[in-house]
Amino acid sequence: MFSQPLSISFQLPVWVNNFSQSYQATTDLNQRMKFVISAARKNVEEETGGPFAAAIFEIETGKLVSLGINLVTTQQLSILHAEMVAITVAQAKLKTYDLAETSLPKLELVTSTEPCAMCFGAIPWSGVARVVTAAKGEDAQNIGFDEGPKPDNWIKGLTDRGIQVIDNIERETSQAVLKLYQESSGHIYNSREN
Amino acid sequence: MFSQPLSISFQLPVWVNNFSQSYQATTDLNQRMKFVISAARKNVEEETGGPFAAAIFEIETGKLVSLGINLVTTQQLSILHAEMVAITVAQAKLKTYDLAETSLPKLELVTSTEPCAMCFGAIPWSGVARVVTAAKGEDAQNIGFDEGPKPDNWIKGLTDRGIQVIDNIERETSQAVLKLYQESSGHIYNSREN
Repeated sequence: MFSQPLSISFQLPVWVNNFSQSYQATTDLNQRMKFVISAARKNVEEETGGPFAAAIFEIETGKLVSLGINLVTTQQLSILHAEMVAITVAQAKLKTYDLAETSLPKLELVTSTEPCAMCFGAIPWSGVARVVTAAKGEDAQNIGFDEGPKPDNWIKGLTDRGIQVIDNIERETSQAVLKLYQESSGHIYNSREN
Repeated sequence: MFSQPLSISFQLPVWVNNFSQSYQATTDLNQRMKFVISAARKNVEEETGGPFAAAIFEIETGKLVSLGINLVTTQQLSILHAEMVAITVAQAKLKTYDLAETSLPKLELVTSTEPCAMCFGAIPWSGVARVVTAAKGEDAQNIGFDEGPKPDNWIKGLTDRGIQVIDNIERETSQAVLKLYQESSGHIYNSREN
């Protein structure tokens, strides 16, 4: 007889809440990014997932809405990239699938590495007004991760939809975390595509 | 004080299990697709989400592994397109983020409409060996949905990674469900992008 789970859930590690409470809201974009990258580092150190983190902030105030980390291997679900987790946690917290709802302040996705093809495609549906990235796709590829079939002109794909993109913020800081993961022999999931 | 949910869950409507039990495994691809499209229709009739459904089948036997339906509006999470739900439910059921694990039979994603940019990008990470589609992206666009910034050559993006694509299976059957949704004044989420 066919049966399937009718309820799906995934858990973030408990360190995420304490870690998030250490963040002080700031209007300095580099500081926001440094916080996100430090979460990626923590995810490697705690062995709770891949070397990627992302967060949703209020653009104007820098207030943190959600912090997402990569949970693919620990939760055994391939869609749980850091950006997808950050978007989903923010929507669950704010109780809306549309982060562009007029009652909300304008929100941004700050991510430690450029979005892969999936996360890129998820951004227009999320409602974020801005995307900020650190490491390039090629930095992730250099340690064995695949960015997927993402259009070369992905930034235009977002700006054409009214989503601002700011790249290359604290790239070297994020590259250091990717290198740490590689040196700690972290598991490169989906590496067969490379 | 910052706080965020550390556990995220989403529910499928209870009709999904009974409905899935009505499916008889078949080697006829059109029959598999008709079943998936009938789930999309049921999702409209039950008002449990958008006019889209997707399923994971064992390619050789046609055995059903998971049935996903669009849950964006009912669960208030923008990533819950039918394909993402089908992939996630299958991985939760089989307890692996990689549906290409050698211990598993080869699996396919059968979806009532071409994947959008996000679901397209999610497919290579899922481990499915084949994708089968009915309605075209333009059919969804014709009733107001946006397919997102998907590459024009999306089929090549998958076949280049060894994923077979079979399109245009029961397209008119799926178009009829899109039309039903439009006529029943279904909510077109994210319609501002159009």
